[in-house]
Amino acid sequence: MQTLKGIAVSSGVAIAKIHHLAETTQMSLKKFSTDKNVELNRFNETIKEAVSQLELLTLQSKTKIGQEHAEIFSAQTLMLKDPMLIERVTDKIMNHQLDAAYAFRQTMSEFIDMFEISDNLYIKERILDLKDVTKRVLDIFSQKEMIQQPKYDMILVAKDLLPSETLHLDTRYIKGILTQFGSKTSHSAILSRHLGIPSISSIDVTGLEENAVVIMDGKKGLVIIHPTEEVLTYYEDLKEKIRLEKEKFSVVKDLKIVTKDHKHIPILANIGTLEDIDESIHFGADGIGLLRTENQYMEQNDFPTEDELFEFYQKISERYQDKKIVVRTLDIGGDKNLSYLNIRKEANPFLGNRAIRYSLSYPALFKTQLRAILKANKHQNLSIMFPMISTIDELRQAKSILHDAISSLKEEFIEVIMPPLGIMVEVPSTAIGIEKFLKEIDFISIGTNDLIQYLFAADRMNDKVSYLYQPYNPILLKLIKDIVDKAHEFGIMVSVCGEMAANLKQAFLLIGLGIDALSMHSNVIPEIKYQFQQTYLSDLKSLANQALQLETNIEVHDLVDEYLKKLLI
Amino acid sequence: MQTLKGIAVSSGVAIAKIHHLAETTQMSLKKFSTDKNVELNRFNETIKEAVSQLELLTLQSKTKIGQEHAEIFSAQTLMLKDPMLIERVTDKIMNHQLDAAYAFRQTMSEFIDMFEISDNLYIKERILDLKDVTKRVLDIFSQKEMIQQPKYDMILVAKDLLPSETLHLDTRYIKGILTQFGSKTSHSAILSRHLGIPSISSIDVTGLEENAVVIMDGKKGLVIIHPTEEVLTYYEDLKEKIRLEKEKFSVVKDLKIVTKDHKHIPILANIGTLEDIDESIHFGADGIGLLRTENQYMEQNDFPTEDELFEFYQKISERYQDKKIVVRTLDIGGDKNLSYLNIRKEANPFLGNRAIRYSLSYPALFKTQLRAILKANKHQNLSIMFPMISTIDELRQAKSILHDAISSLKEEFIEVIMPPLGIMVEVPSTAIGIEKFLKEIDFISIGTNDLIQYLFAADRMNDKVSYLYQPYNPILLKLIKDIVDKAHEFGIMVSVCGEMAANLKQAFLLIGLGIDALSMHSNVIPEIKYQFQQTYLSDLKSLANQALQLETNIEVHDLVDEYLKKLLI
Repeated sequence: MQTLKGIAVSSGVAIAKIHHLAETTQMSLKKFSTDKNVELNRFNETIKEAVSQLELLTLQSKTKIGQEHAEIFSAQTLMLKDPMLIERVTDKIMNHQLDAAYAFRQTMSEFIDMFEISDNLYIKERILDLKDVTKRVLDIFSQKEMIQQPKYDMILVAKDLLPSETLHLDTRYIKGILTQFGSKTSHSAILSRHLGIPSISSIDVTGLEENAVVIMDGKKGLVIIHPTEEVLTYYEDLKEKIRLEKEKFSVVKDLKIVTKDHKHIPILANIGTLEDIDESIHFGADGIGLLRTENQYMEQNDFPTEDELFEFYQKISERYQDKKIVVRTLDIGGDKNLSYLNIRKEANPFLGNRAIRYSLSYPALFKTQLRAILKANKHQNLSIMFPMISTIDELRQAKSILHDAISSLKEEFIEVIMPPLGIMVEVPSTAIGIEKFLKEIDFISIGTNDLIQYLFAADRMNDKVSYLYQPYNPILLKLIKDIVDKAHEFGIMVSVCGEMAANLKQAFLLIGLGIDALSMHSNVIPEIKYQFQQTYLSDLKSLANQALQLETNIEVHDLVDEYLKKLLI
Repeated sequence: MQTLKGIAVSSGVAIAKIHHLAETTQMSLKKFSTDKNVELNRFNETIKEAVSQLELLTLQSKTKIGQEHAEIFSAQTLMLKDPMLIERVTDKIMNHQLDAAYAFRQTMSEFIDMFEISDNLYIKERILDLKDVTKRVLDIFSQKEMIQQPKYDMILVAKDLLPSETLHLDTRYIKGILTQFGSKTSHSAILSRHLGIPSISSIDVTGLEENAVVIMDGKKGLVIIHPTEEVLTYYEDLKEKIRLEKEKFSVVKDLKIVTKDHKHIPILANIGTLEDIDESIHFGADGIGLLRTENQYMEQNDFPTEDELFEFYQKISERYQDKKIVVRTLDIGGDKNLSYLNIRKEANPFLGNRAIRYSLSYPALFKTQLRAILKANKHQNLSIMFPMISTIDELRQAKSILHDAISSLKEEFIEVIMPPLGIMVEVPSTAIGIEKFLKEIDFISIGTNDLIQYLFAADRMNDKVSYLYQPYNPILLKLIKDIVDKAHEFGIMVSVCGEMAANLKQAFLLIGLGIDALSMHSNVIPEIKYQFQQTYLSDLKSLANQALQLETNIEVHDLVDEYLKKLLI
């Protein structure tokens, strides 16, 4: 038996086979091919697919975002049809036995080098297009390979996990995640908590043998290789105990929960896909506090049409007829990019052109989304929420495009009524100046992940400064309390849809500060509901008041920890 | 005569020859050499210098930042001494007539490609070192070439201006700046305002002929090529008029200025080098509100020693004997990097490991700087200021290292007294929670550039979102007022050392909001002093109060514009 100790990122127990992510996405590492005819065929098929994507994009950009983009895409198409490219890659595959993706990448590098030493500025500017088109083709190569992910329960092992890498994974088979890098706030952490599976980081993954069965203890941060019979039995029992506890929670999951002093707290779900709806209903969500709309834009190779969006929103509206659904408009940018859009690489993407800023810079696109939501709202249960609002001007611009969308529908004799309108409070300017916004909206939702990140000016994905992700910091708590107090003066409800809502200790503080509803990933809902049933709102209020008197993150953390321990006795 | 219209970035008139920055730094574009023996010699000399830099770093890291860094540098030295590298580059120079820098870069790319396809993780990890060492050598190549900058008055022309590119330029000869990209908030804008020269962006620079004499009208954003006699005379007159106006301002520059209702407003200078002191004295600064200490770290190829730092601080303390000097501790990171430190590339450097965060992660380095400041403070005119404080914990950690530094000096029988201690307020958490910090410090200075950037979550160097750099936004102004009010309750002075202090309209607002002192680059001091002499503090207060009632950036801008117009009549 061998034991490795890492940083405990997400709790739970998993017993399954090791699978290295690199085995799934090793494309870029392979140099030589085994069958040159297979490779040549693979190359031709991939280029064909890339060309057809680009031709479609050219056509659609003309109508949707304008001539300038159309020209970029058609120039990129020409690059892929260049006989010199075809000839060079074919030569590398047939005469040097290179793997298709490798041969293609190599040839594009040669072109880029040639372009770089040119004195002609026009040619130099084409380098970005070359790189973009290279990325597109390599993405197609790797998507095709990723289908080879094995179909058995696995503990996914990787140096680090990027959002783009997880997008195409079949998460049903992932029972635990082990990484070398990453922290409690990294993507792998968020993914594992979302899936409700254990996760451990800071493990030297190079020595882990593919297919070896290991035990993961997510709470202690332990990985156990070749466990003894005794240890295995211990963990099988523990797994069963955890399952039973979840069952205990699930008794209350379909109840409208109230605290012991009769305060009802709506527990809502954050969802992004149709499958998430079933899950949220299964776990007893009282509604959808955050419907993310990025998936419909990220899954395809082009902007979804109004009809495609309409269909998606309508299905959700129908499944949740009797409950409220808050639809957040497109929240792209930052670390979520659209492959088919030439978004320039930004020096600081989290401070860049994202979310509502992006929507406002492409009003036609934005209007398409708003029309789809308005049309899908037959059951009058959809609300619209704008992400990343940082000034009143932006809110007014967004509202004006919404009014445009309504007018355009009326002109087509489609009857719509204005749905409730809200904003995400996640930029510090909006948080501290909230009273200026309240008279122009119907509800607000605090996005604690980004708000904390901007408040302390620290990228929580950067492990050098992730210590500044301080959800218990009294300065943050005071800010939340001020937002709640001002909103309530205007009769406006405040929910929280960041990670804080899904963390029991932090959720207690939030409700104590006066937050009206919590929205979280569905699998946490039963536990949160169960625990709130055991508390008094009056206790939570006095807990929050005590916290506001303290000075540091750790002091508040310890205070709430003490409270929770007493509660659980 | 031909006229180009761009975006007016910095006002003023310049008449001088065009010089393309690319002509100075074209190294990376040149492929073939004219004399292969010259190139071979150039290659050998450059490698020798890089090796000697690395050997020094290896030695010094052992004592200063630890074994881990030392090993990185010594591994990099071995890479440069690799016979295979030398052989390949020599072959490219001698047998293929390649330019030395190009041949080196090409060879390193080949190595990186080879490393990338390896399955050995250790080898793959060396890629970062290869890239780092490549950058070091190419930097040496380009520094050697940059000495060729012509020695005549010029209008500097570039696609875009990076801080690293401007570091080695002789700014005495730069009379104006023309760029294709960049905005009012870019580096070229900051540089040109600092130099007090005109700057225009969004000009297609490719057509501008090297050495052609042109007129720049920075206020209108006009570039005039082949001007007629008449136009030339007009601009020579205008230049003279501007000069006379500056003379008018300079009458008051050495006075301690007061408003018409007798309020004294200290006008301080932001400086970073010994030369800046002369300039600040010449322009009549009432003291140094911000002494930047990055230059001493960026100019050399290694950390400065305690003695080197001591010497620098002491010179400044002596030159300004009767006046106060606020020394800001190292503010590295973000877009200011130290070439000799392996700072990992961050996804969002502005939200990364910078300023005090960096100092706290290298306490030995930080202590060295603090000891140097304490020792240099013979005239008791130095204060110490920590940048980017975002939590109380950080402030306390920094103070504890300061106490360590004092104790260590006392052990060496060096008498020191604790200088006044302050913090930069530039992170939103500190701005809104300021009352928690005030009891632990003696003064504060608001860094408006970063504060605005974080408050609106927008990178001001990113032209897609630079519209969110909103110095007139009432939410910002209210925040500044709250900071001032709370600080004054504690008897603590508040200065501003960001760009807002140097902008007349914004400076009026700041003083109206209760700010006690303004700190700016020296060349603006005479105008700011002159204008404050013409105002009543009571007017500025009522102006600021009106501004707080408004809702948007543009409304406040227009309000102050109106006020200024009346004042100037």
